Amino acid sequence: MHILILGAGGMIGRKLTARLVADGTLRGEPVTALTLIDVVEPAKPAGFSGEVKTRAADLSAPGVAAQSIEGRPDVIFHLAAIVSGEAEANFELGYRVNLDGTRLLFEAIHALGQAGQYAPRVVFTSSLAVFGAPFPDIIPDEFFLTPLTSYGTQKAMGELLLADYSRRGIFDGIGIRLPTICIRPGLPNKAASGFFSNILREPLAGQEAVLPVDESVRHWHASPRSAVGFLLHAATIDLAPLGARRSVSMPGLSATVGEQIAALRRVGGEGAVKLIRREPDPTIARIVSGWPGRFEAGQARALGFQADASFDDIIRAHVEDELGGKIAGGA
Amino acid sequence: MHILILGAGGMIGRKLTARLVADGTLRGEPVTALTLIDVVEPAKPAGFSGEVKTRAADLSAPGVAAQSIEGRPDVIFHLAAIVSGEAEANFELGYRVNLDGTRLLFEAIHALGQAGQYAPRVVFTSSLAVFGAPFPDIIPDEFFLTPLTSYGTQKAMGELLLADYSRRGIFDGIGIRLPTICIRPGLPNKAASGFFSNILREPLAGQEAVLPVDESVRHWHASPRSAVGFLLHAATIDLAPLGARRSVSMPGLSATVGEQIAALRRVGGEGAVKLIRREPDPTIARIVSGWPGRFEAGQARALGFQADASFDDIIRAHVEDELGGKIAGGA
Repeated sequence: MHILILGAGGMIGRKLTARLVADGTLRGEPVTALTLIDVVEPAKPAGFSGEVKTRAADLSAPGVAAQSIEGRPDVIFHLAAIVSGEAEANFELGYRVNLDGTRLLFEAIHALGQAGQYAPRVVFTSSLAVFGAPFPDIIPDEFFLTPLTSYGTQKAMGELLLADYSRRGIFDGIGIRLPTICIRPGLPNKAASGFFSNILREPLAGQEAVLPVDESVRHWHASPRSAVGFLLHAATIDLAPLGARRSVSMPGLSATVGEQIAALRRVGGEGAVKLIRREPDPTIARIVSGWPGRFEAGQARALGFQADASFDDIIRAHVEDELGGKIAGGA
Repeated sequence: MHILILGAGGMIGRKLTARLVADGTLRGEPVTALTLIDVVEPAKPAGFSGEVKTRAADLSAPGVAAQSIEGRPDVIFHLAAIVSGEAEANFELGYRVNLDGTRLLFEAIHALGQAGQYAPRVVFTSSLAVFGAPFPDIIPDEFFLTPLTSYGTQKAMGELLLADYSRRGIFDGIGIRLPTICIRPGLPNKAASGFFSNILREPLAGQEAVLPVDESVRHWHASPRSAVGFLLHAATIDLAPLGARRSVSMPGLSATVGEQIAALRRVGGEGAVKLIRREPDPTIARIVSGWPGRFEAGQARALGFQADASFDDIIRAHVEDELGGKIAGGA
C-alpha cells in the first residue's frame, strides 16, 4: 500500500503521517511506501520501515501533480490548501492553489489512468466554509452550497470536480468537510477562529488567553485526533453508498464557548479557567456570528465516522497528545 | 447602453438580440451598441440603428475574453456553452469552454475593473442540470447542487465563481437556471430532451413526431419567449435582495407529456395529435426518469420573473413566432 499525502507538512498532515506509521497498515494492508509533499519539505517520519519520499513542491506549479503520482499511490490524501484568511486576502493565490492545484491533481490522475489501469482512492479535505449563513439551527446533510468566502468557493468547486471525476470512474473520491479543529496545537494565532483553541490550549499550558466573544457563541468542533480518524476512515470504507454525492459533512461536537470553559474547569481546574481574559472584539464577534453551530451529519455517522464524545474528551486528548499528560499548575 | 452577448448565434442568443433591437431600450436606457460573439460569426441584426460588432471567436481561446469586453459593455449576457450531451461526450472540451471560458471572462472583467471603474451586470445562463436525482416532488429553491453530468458540474462551478466575484464587487452577477426550452424551433434533434419539443413542433408543421416515453412523464418547461424575458429581467432588476446567493431557479410550467398533448389537441386539433407516433425507447425513458418535474421557484417569482401561464400559451407563442400564425392542416 503506497500512500501519498499532499500537504503532509501541515498540522493534520503530520499527525496523519504519524498515525499511518504507528498503525503500519491501512485497509488491512501493510503501508509499504509513503510519499510526503508540501511547499516546505516534510520531515521523514521516524520508525517507518517502508520507502519514504519527501519533497518540497507546489501542486499548482507545472508538472508537479504528474510527478507527485508517478509512483501510482493507492491512496491520495489531498490536504494541500491556502487557508481561509489568506485565500480571502490573496484572490489569485487562493484560486491558483485551492482550485487549480486540485484540478491539476485530478487531471494528472486522469492522464495516468488513461495510460493504464489506475483509479486510486482520493480523500479530499473540504470545509464547513462551503456553507454560508443564514443557517437553520441544525444544518442538514443536504444543505446547499453557499460559501461566503473565496476559500469556501474554491473548496465547493473542488467538491464538484471530485464528484464528476468519481462519477466517470477516473478515481474513487470522497470529500470530507472537517469541523473546526479544536484544540489546534502550536502558538496562538489571530485567525478569527483562533480563540476556540486559544482559550483551552493556553490555560492548560499556564498561559493567559483572550476570549473576544460571548460565552453563548456555539460552534462545531473536532479534535485533531478525530480529524485523522476521519481521514483514515474515508480512505477505508466502501464509497458506493455515496452514489454521485461524494462530499460528506463530518460529525463533530456542537458546543458553546461556555460549555468549552465548563469542560476546561472539569479537566484543568478553576486555575486554568481564571487565565481566560474577556476582551470583547466586535469584529470577531460579527464574523463568528455567521458561522455554523451544529450539523446533522447523519450520513457521516451512518458511514461510521465518529466524532469526539465530549469536550472533556477533546481536552484530555490534547493533554495526552501535546502535553505529555501534564497540565500546568495542575487541576 | 452597450450590450455584449456571448453565444449570440445560438437560438436564445438570436431571439435575445432581436428582442433588444425591437425594444430599443434596456433598463429604460437606449441600446446604443451591441457586441455579438459566437464561435460562428453571428448575423448583424436588421433594423438596429446603433453600433454593432459581430465576431467569430472562442471565449476559451487566449485573449478573446479581454477583447470581448474592451468596449466596456454595461451588460454582459453569457450564453456561450458546450451543450450537455457534447460536454458529456467530450470531457476536455466541456471543461475548457464551460468552465475555463467562464472563468476567463470573469477574470477579464476583474483585470479591466482594476484598471479603472468597471463592474458590469453579468447575466449567466445556468441550468437545471446543476441538480441531480433523487429529487423531492417539488424541488425547493435551496436544493443542493448535485449535478449528474459534466455539463451540470461546469454550470454549478460557474455559479460558484459568479457568486464569489459578485461578492467581491468585481461585477454584479446573476445566474439564471433555465427550464427546458419548449417549443425549441428548428429541426428535430436526438438530444434525450428533444421529444418534448418534437411532439408539438412537428405536428404543428404537419409532420410526424416520435414519442419515446410514457404520457405520465413530468418535466419543467419555458418557452423561448419566456427565456428571453428572464434574461432581460435579470439584466434589469436590483440584485441586492439576492445577497451572496446569486443563482436563481427560473419559474416554469410543470407539465406531463399527456398535458402537453392535451394542449396540442386544444390549439392544433386532433389531426395534429394523430401525427404523434408512440415508439417507447427504454434508454430515453431511463434518462428522463432522473429529470426534475417541478420547482418551487418562489424566489424567482418574488423577484418578478414570470413563467408561461399554460402549455396552450406556449404552443400559441410558437405558432405566432415561428409559423407566422399558421398551423399546418388547421385546427
